[in-house]
Amino acid sequence: MNTELIYLDHAAATPIDPRVLAAMQPYFSDAFYNPSSPYAPAIVVRRDYDEAKHTLAQAIGAKPDELIITAGATESINLAFHSVSGHVVVPSIEHHAVLAAAKQHDHTIVAVDPKGMVSAQTIKDAITEHTQLVSVAIANNELGTIQPLRDIAQVIRIEREQRLARGDTTPIYLHCDASQGVGQLDINVARLGLDMLTLNSGKMYGPKQVGLLWAASHVHIEPLIVGGGQERGLRSGTENVAGVIGFAKALSLASEHRKFESERLAKLRDRLHQRLAEAFPAAVFSGHQKHRLSGHLHVSFPNIDGERLVFALESRGVLVATGSACAANKGTRSHVLTAIGLAPEVADGSLRLTLGHASNDETIEKAGIILIEEIQREYARTQA
Amino acid sequence: MNTELIYLDHAAATPIDPRVLAAMQPYFSDAFYNPSSPYAPAIVVRRDYDEAKHTLAQAIGAKPDELIITAGATESINLAFHSVSGHVVVPSIEHHAVLAAAKQHDHTIVAVDPKGMVSAQTIKDAITEHTQLVSVAIANNELGTIQPLRDIAQVIRIEREQRLARGDTTPIYLHCDASQGVGQLDINVARLGLDMLTLNSGKMYGPKQVGLLWAASHVHIEPLIVGGGQERGLRSGTENVAGVIGFAKALSLASEHRKFESERLAKLRDRLHQRLAEAFPAAVFSGHQKHRLSGHLHVSFPNIDGERLVFALESRGVLVATGSACAANKGTRSHVLTAIGLAPEVADGSLRLTLGHASNDETIEKAGIILIEEIQREYARTQA
Repeated sequence: MNTELIYLDHAAATPIDPRVLAAMQPYFSDAFYNPSSPYAPAIVVRRDYDEAKHTLAQAIGAKPDELIITAGATESINLAFHSVSGHVVVPSIEHHAVLAAAKQHDHTIVAVDPKGMVSAQTIKDAITEHTQLVSVAIANNELGTIQPLRDIAQVIRIEREQRLARGDTTPIYLHCDASQGVGQLDINVARLGLDMLTLNSGKMYGPKQVGLLWAASHVHIEPLIVGGGQERGLRSGTENVAGVIGFAKALSLASEHRKFESERLAKLRDRLHQRLAEAFPAAVFSGHQKHRLSGHLHVSFPNIDGERLVFALESRGVLVATGSACAANKGTRSHVLTAIGLAPEVADGSLRLTLGHASNDETIEKAGIILIEEIQREYARTQA
Repeated sequence: MNTELIYLDHAAATPIDPRVLAAMQPYFSDAFYNPSSPYAPAIVVRRDYDEAKHTLAQAIGAKPDELIITAGATESINLAFHSVSGHVVVPSIEHHAVLAAAKQHDHTIVAVDPKGMVSAQTIKDAITEHTQLVSVAIANNELGTIQPLRDIAQVIRIEREQRLARGDTTPIYLHCDASQGVGQLDINVARLGLDMLTLNSGKMYGPKQVGLLWAASHVHIEPLIVGGGQERGLRSGTENVAGVIGFAKALSLASEHRKFESERLAKLRDRLHQRLAEAFPAAVFSGHQKHRLSGHLHVSFPNIDGERLVFALESRGVLVATGSACAANKGTRSHVLTAIGLAPEVADGSLRLTLGHASNDETIEKAGIILIEEIQREYARTQA
């Protein structure tokens, strides 16, 4: 990355960590063998691949043979939804991948509170006797709001027990998209009470188009992609060994540095928050201010054109987002901001600032100064 | 790759070409931005990504907006089959991905001749009024036999015209899996008369888990993976920019060196063929001896245990396959060899030798000596 740029869009993409790339490097051109080949060098590759899956499993408190390696979170989410046939329940602020997959089923989209929080009660109310899947992201990618997954898991558990008690065998699963927040939250599938979990290497300093779906052994997975029978027949295709080695390294590093990095980012974020709040008393900070990813800062400047601001900031070397990268590219208003009830004139002046490895005292200090100058300039312009 | 090993399994996996890796390198940690982000460095990444797609399209005589980037051939094949609902026709020797995808439909599996050749007439006979897809690999991955795709395309064209003439709007498409043979055959979608084409980066010295499905503009593609709307909504998920840059570089290199490399490999392969034929008059060479990929040599030694032979050769540093890597891993007899009618005692003594970049005069000379010694030793052992 160009070191003169101040990157505040870690939720959209992260560079591959040099340690991750170093771990991957041998598998590009040296240990490139097909892990299904019978000779020893390929068997070594198979072993390394399996070890990487073991590392991934361990990091989330799961068993390696419960993991299905995919080409990223979007595929994992689609695979989770493809595995159920009945009604599904999802919050309105989920990522487009979850919303699009839900819309292929009989579905209920539930509202969230103004902080972007999903309540377990709302989920409970939306569950019908036909519901087979509830999918809730661990944290919202725009606001950073962390969801009460344990409470939601409790609702699912009770529903499951009630069905069992009345002899109803319709399964009901809780899937969690944890693409965001892996470096900042403890993702233990048992502690969270999940049945399925999606992880994405590309948002945690690992390679892109690599992800996984964890599914507890009681979940019946219906493959989306069939063929050579890789991943226990649940996801065919010659394995991306280098990618999975990198993914495992990235997740290990995230787990190892989680506490330190999470506290470090929260401190930097809070400082930036404070400076912007002082400079712009009318600024609206969205997302739950306590239960929020430590690198996320969502702020709206009423009556300012957020897109213009992104370009003004870019000309000063500060890279930020107006919304999630996918929505931003389409020039439509963020569905998340609409869902939390932000007025259009507030929503349209939004910035999503997401801190990460590239953030430090110096860059955040400098970003604060530039942000304040450019926002003041925009206000001066619009009021002229 | 360990230079002391003689790698004769290029059909199972290829190392990433150093030039491909060099092209990818900047996109891992520097130009890592999400191509959907709005700021200039991300727009540059988007442009580079689009240029890579342009290069890929040009290499196959297609338009860039007819390409859908996927996570490899298996996904591309699944996407092609997912886009039709009616009857499908596939030859019995197709890759497992094609056979498995076909089995999700009403399907007819057609026989091939003893050389592994599919005849256009057989395809014609299998087409019913409900047939919507015919899928034929450009060359068989075990035997190397090259299929008469132009003749098959002609059959499809006539069927389409007849349907049109009688007012039947049922579509019929020809899909070709060209995972094998890209470095040796001219893959021009118009000249071949295709409607859909699958390519795989991982078998042509590019990165693994990267591929594409080309679909002519008249083909209606039904997405398998929905979400953020990437790839014109036909395949969602944050783009693997580094992977696609590498894929484009790999395909460019393959196209550029095709004629030279194809002739070079054919010469080496023919020499090896001749040596084995002279040493073992009972050896059975399968696949079409004229219409065959120039790097492929499929040979069976009756009453020899092919798997034992693979291990014996490995101990001498020569890496070969008994069948395709997926099937080999399952310890079952190759469906391809069964389909061409090889007797079990012949099929079980098979080696698939596939030459490629790592092959040269010296390695092939040495491989020939070692092969002859080890096969003689196996014959001596079994006859003892």
